[in-house]
Amino acid sequence: MSAQTQPPSPEHFFEAVTAYQRSAALKAAVEIGLFTAVAEGRRDARSIAERCGAAERGVRILSDFLVITGFLTKDAGGYGLTQDSAIFLDRRSPAYMGGTLEFLLAPSLLKGFEELAGAVRKGGTVVPEGGTVSVENPIWEKFARAMVPMAAPVAGQLPPLVGARQEGKFKVLDLAAGHGLYGLAFARHNPEAEVVALDWPGVLEVAKEHARAAGVAERYSTIEGDAFGAEFGEGYDVVLLTNFLHHFDPPTCEQLLRKVHAALNEGGAALTLEFVPNEDRVTPPLAAAFSLTMLAGTDGGDAYTYPELERMFANAGFSSSEAHPLTASPQQAIVSRA
Amino acid sequence: MSAQTQPPSPEHFFEAVTAYQRSAALKAAVEIGLFTAVAEGRRDARSIAERCGAAERGVRILSDFLVITGFLTKDAGGYGLTQDSAIFLDRRSPAYMGGTLEFLLAPSLLKGFEELAGAVRKGGTVVPEGGTVSVENPIWEKFARAMVPMAAPVAGQLPPLVGARQEGKFKVLDLAAGHGLYGLAFARHNPEAEVVALDWPGVLEVAKEHARAAGVAERYSTIEGDAFGAEFGEGYDVVLLTNFLHHFDPPTCEQLLRKVHAALNEGGAALTLEFVPNEDRVTPPLAAAFSLTMLAGTDGGDAYTYPELERMFANAGFSSSEAHPLTASPQQAIVSRA
Repeated sequence: MSAQTQPPSPEHFFEAVTAYQRSAALKAAVEIGLFTAVAEGRRDARSIAERCGAAERGVRILSDFLVITGFLTKDAGGYGLTQDSAIFLDRRSPAYMGGTLEFLLAPSLLKGFEELAGAVRKGGTVVPEGGTVSVENPIWEKFARAMVPMAAPVAGQLPPLVGARQEGKFKVLDLAAGHGLYGLAFARHNPEAEVVALDWPGVLEVAKEHARAAGVAERYSTIEGDAFGAEFGEGYDVVLLTNFLHHFDPPTCEQLLRKVHAALNEGGAALTLEFVPNEDRVTPPLAAAFSLTMLAGTDGGDAYTYPELERMFANAGFSSSEAHPLTASPQQAIVSRA
Repeated sequence: MSAQTQPPSPEHFFEAVTAYQRSAALKAAVEIGLFTAVAEGRRDARSIAERCGAAERGVRILSDFLVITGFLTKDAGGYGLTQDSAIFLDRRSPAYMGGTLEFLLAPSLLKGFEELAGAVRKGGTVVPEGGTVSVENPIWEKFARAMVPMAAPVAGQLPPLVGARQEGKFKVLDLAAGHGLYGLAFARHNPEAEVVALDWPGVLEVAKEHARAAGVAERYSTIEGDAFGAEFGEGYDVVLLTNFLHHFDPPTCEQLLRKVHAALNEGGAALTLEFVPNEDRVTPPLAAAFSLTMLAGTDGGDAYTYPELERMFANAGFSSSEAHPLTASPQQAIVSRA
């Protein structure tokens, strides 16, 4: 038992019991555009409600809750935005994050948490067909459309990490490409780079939209399928494994990594983007806590520590791995040389 | 916009996005008896899993998450309980609170939060038939059985607040009695006091069990029905309104309070137990935040401020009201004289 200096209180218990309301309130506020209405200058419940097409009572109660939970301010002049809400929750802001809730709070993701005790007893998701990694699960189209604001600040950091050339032939394979932003960062970095994106057909439509928008469609090709079954081809300088390994158990990861190793040129690199907890598995909190999402939503996935990742790559034939912190992200990049 | 000294960060946003996982993890841990297993001395995932009939992987990931969220400790010797977890989450502890989750996280209560934007737009619950106050909603039997640990530390504080005599004839009406603990506190306080409990039949079975256990069954009678339709009789010294008014809008409350007033003796008192936010409606946090539960789960309920409650009682004919803080509770007691 840890030493505590405060008197016993069930407060922490009740805070956790009601924590689900914080997620629900944030989602509701984003859905009705409440933060944007306040950003536009509407400061009382009636005028916010009018702008959002909602009831004044509903907006008053929700707004007060958002004050209590630190997303709004309230003073004699009415409701206002905090600095972070203005930057991340006003739809007109370039750093708007509200759209990520379409994925992060999608009912199919929450499903795994509804009967979490079942997942703890079983040791894996109780959602049928392996949860979120089931074949052509439509959640990944949602992911590809919604998660751009989280990937954008990170993607540009990746090419220098593998020492990617800024000119000349360069071939990149983007596994489970999703929105495609990580692969596209290489196409931007080197005007001769070719990017091959692999994902399910519906998801690739989103990646191709982004490739067209980036003006690199002629250097962008796709492979439809999943990373375990599809033929990769060969001659790649870089293979991207962004937010992918955490869905699978170590033997499954190693099996994939052997295939990745075979597709790489000599001296080529696998670039992995992951939540990497310390070996205590409880720090840093965001990376370590991600493990529960994998318990709830997959058969055998996890947030792997760096030694665990290093071992998988070594077992698959890679000669060395190196971890790199990223700015504006709780994740790390691991560069593993073939 | 408030002045902030820290650089912008979406961290607070992500903390709220994933807050629902804290509720789910706590519920899963209570359901499998994880805290009790650790209290019994099991400190590693394998032996905790064995005791709980769960998978080692599930227990390891859940336990680490509970360390991150402050419910367990972790050191070289393994997992341990925090002071508060030992007191409130070990099933063998007299202050065990785990059972309250049967009510506080009941699927039918969570339902109102699943589509909270709908409730904000409408200004009231989108759950059919007025949500939690629907006729003979089985949630209230769950409430009566689960919420004893929250009521027990408060019930004994009530009789002195209304100056209840400790001997002689004394008649108490306990409206929407639930577990019955508040009314039973008066039966304990005065060995001649008679208590009449009103609630739906299934709920009254629980209250009667508690009356028998307290040895006061011969002074305990019941009225089956709801507080709006049932005949109260008259000649009461005290009418209890514990956690009841918050489910209804002010006109509905006033209508009920007039009926309560008519049932009281001259000089008798209504005793109300409520979450009472300050007039800013955002402090204290726990009382103020309760309003959102009423938006999600009722047609027109709210966490009323003291001036709002005072006005309802005055409009219903009460001569005076007075608020009293309670120990070991985020709620207040309001004594209103007939």
